[in-house]
Amino acid sequence: RINGDRLWDSLMEMAKIGPGVAGGNNRQTLTDEDAAGRALFQKWCKEAGCTMGLDQMGNMFAHREGTDPEALPVYVGSHLDTQPTGGKYDGVLGVLGGLEIIRTLNDLGIKTKHPIVATNWTNEEGTRYAPAMLSSGVFAGMHTQDWAYDREDAEAKKFGDELSRIGWRGDEEVGARKMHAFFELHIEQGPILEAEGKDIGVVTHGQGLSWTQITVTGKDAHTGSTPMPMRKNAGLAMARILEKVDEIAWSHAPHAVGAAGHIDVFPNSRNVIPGKVVFTVDLRSPDLDVITDMENRLRVAAEDIVDEMGLQIEFEKVGGFDPVQFDEGCVAAVRDAAERLGYSHTDIISGAGHDACWINRVAPTAMVMCPCVDGLSHNEAEEISKDWAAAGADVLFHAVVETAGI
Amino acid sequence: RINGDRLWDSLMEMAKIGPGVAGGNNRQTLTDEDAAGRALFQKWCKEAGCTMGLDQMGNMFAHREGTDPEALPVYVGSHLDTQPTGGKYDGVLGVLGGLEIIRTLNDLGIKTKHPIVATNWTNEEGTRYAPAMLSSGVFAGMHTQDWAYDREDAEAKKFGDELSRIGWRGDEEVGARKMHAFFELHIEQGPILEAEGKDIGVVTHGQGLSWTQITVTGKDAHTGSTPMPMRKNAGLAMARILEKVDEIAWSHAPHAVGAAGHIDVFPNSRNVIPGKVVFTVDLRSPDLDVITDMENRLRVAAEDIVDEMGLQIEFEKVGGFDPVQFDEGCVAAVRDAAERLGYSHTDIISGAGHDACWINRVAPTAMVMCPCVDGLSHNEAEEISKDWAAAGADVLFHAVVETAGI
Ligand SMILES: NC(=O)NCCC(=O)O
Ligand SMILES: NC(=O)NCCC(=O)O
Repeated sequence: RINGDRLWDSLMEMAKIGPGVAGGNNRQTLTDEDAAGRALFQKWCKEAGCTMGLDQMGNMFAHREGTDPEALPVYVGSHLDTQPTGGKYDGVLGVLGGLEIIRTLNDLGIKTKHPIVATNWTNEEGTRYAPAMLSSGVFAGMHTQDWAYDREDAEAKKFGDELSRIGWRGDEEVGARKMHAFFELHIEQGPILEAEGKDIGVVTHGQGLSWTQITVTGKDAHTGSTPMPMRKNAGLAMARILEKVDEIAWSHAPHAVGAAGHIDVFPNSRNVIPGKVVFTVDLRSPDLDVITDMENRLRVAAEDIVDEMGLQIEFEKVGGFDPVQFDEGCVAAVRDAAERLGYSHTDIISGAGHDACWINRVAPTAMVMCPCVDGLSHNEAEEISKDWAAAGADVLFHAVVETAGI
Repeated sequence: RINGDRLWDSLMEMAKIGPGVAGGNNRQTLTDEDAAGRALFQKWCKEAGCTMGLDQMGNMFAHREGTDPEALPVYVGSHLDTQPTGGKYDGVLGVLGGLEIIRTLNDLGIKTKHPIVATNWTNEEGTRYAPAMLSSGVFAGMHTQDWAYDREDAEAKKFGDELSRIGWRGDEEVGARKMHAFFELHIEQGPILEAEGKDIGVVTHGQGLSWTQITVTGKDAHTGSTPMPMRKNAGLAMARILEKVDEIAWSHAPHAVGAAGHIDVFPNSRNVIPGKVVFTVDLRSPDLDVITDMENRLRVAAEDIVDEMGLQIEFEKVGGFDPVQFDEGCVAAVRDAAERLGYSHTDIISGAGHDACWINRVAPTAMVMCPCVDGLSHNEAEEISKDWAAAGADVLFHAVVETAGI
């Protein structure tokens, strides 16, 4: 069994870096806070006897030697970056859970056949830089590194420049490492495990995602002196499209979800009819056909809305991944570990995207989930219990050690 | 007749301060650009032989002596601040039109009985600091100065502090000046004069306005893993309310307009269901009963929407003024001047709010309007012709000199 108190203390220690305004965290990717979180993780890894690798995307790899010089490492990890108003566990639990495995192996004096590598993937959240899971995506060959370096934040600062600025751009070629397997522990971020009273979610699949950035162009004009029939109100068109997004997602519920989290209105002045609105529609389903159907219906509906209003529209796909089926062997290792340890468990589909969804393309991969209170995540009030964290890390530990061999 | 070339050259010179990104201006109130615009206006006024008064709200008063030491001055002016993506004429034409009157009187060696004071009112636009027409409102006793000083911009910088920072906080008590009359020249900002082929709008009334800032509170949550029925999507509620705003305004068209120009979504992250949205609804009509009806229906409709979705809502009135009827004598002076000078003209209701709407409460007031291309304003593409500007300033000149007496 892992040391639940130590894991919890580390979670609380990390949460001191980039505190939020309501008990959570704001440690967005490639900020000074991100750099400070990385430094703390590196310090802990070195104290646990690991060497630290760093690749050109800033992905961190804390290496614990195995006994077989030929054996590929088992990787285990997640991400340390957070949402702007994020929780203390989303991602962090998976990274510090990986570290806790190494610390426990050290405590017990166990040497594994395959090396074990605790990993922190850069920019999982995708808030500052779309798309989400950017660096695990480059690792898995889904994006080129040059394209990733060129991503811009809202202030037009480029990913590559910011990575250099915070001092965490490494030399290692991205994706050069070969993996025996990859495991990721994560909070569920949804309500199912808590509702069903299960300690552990054995993640068999991941939902697919589509992010479409929509730009509606109308005409800035005075809110007072412009007659109603002359208006080209991009904000009103956006409102109508948002209603359609909701309708389209509901038409496939419970097998789909949809919403827009990002909305920027220009010039954003009380007495100017918005001449431009940029917003991102997030559509998801475990079924690729459903995603495709929703994307098509969104496009048709949005085009009809702007045509009728005499406005212009542009669509840009700024993120997306197909639904994922995790590796049967790795999934079984997770399920067996939960069973053996006596934790209640259920198979589950991940509603969120994870680095594991990309790594699954280049290595046998699985995920362990633990419940979170009220299914709430991407909220500073995100909460889990120490017992839930410990159970998740225990299952992770056993699945990883089983796979790494003794 | 005024000197149309000189007026135009001054407009173009002022437009160099705080250039926009598309040919217009970004010279928002109490910015360094505002300060530079004020300095240029002051320089020109001093060159025209005026003394400059400055009150505690930063309102500027360029004084040209009259021949009767007992006579109250005739005031003439508008505002030099602009929208973030504003035009070169909105407000500026009225201030520089006032200066042009003084320059023309100097050219002709005419002394008026009443002094003439060319005025620049601080923060007419209301973008950086709501409400609009803030400082003419304090002058007219509609707001207290302390309340005005406490207004905050989006970065929580206070009006009073920013006024001091740019160095244009004067000593003079606000509203202490008594006026014989006030005249304001302004571009129409709407399509009527151009459509009817009229040179001059004789403004008899002004539309009333209501600004309601609405805060909808839902719950930040993950866009992927939160099932549709569990969502508290404040962005979706906002979308539904915007559709109602449009419906309510149309129900009274052409006697009303409505829109939301200001929308802020929190935390504004692609994969977070918006937990909070703050937006301002702008409702206007020349009929106070219509405004009241629209406000009431908006409130009921918005409350129904959020109740059904299980969200919270707050309403705050952040700006408003009742419909205005201008002074019959001053209006007649404008109409007579247009007639005498041979300009085509029509009576018109102002769709926008103006400093004249507040000053009308403390002094006999009227407005002169000139057309603008396509009725477009609050847009960098705002345009007028040199002839239109000259015609407006000519009518202003004659109405003012008539009222000031020779
Ligand atoms: N786990 C998580 O919140 N990942 C961010 C990517 C997504 O939006 O699903
Ligand atoms: N004239 C003008 O644009 N004033 C701003 C106040 C308003 O929104 O009407």
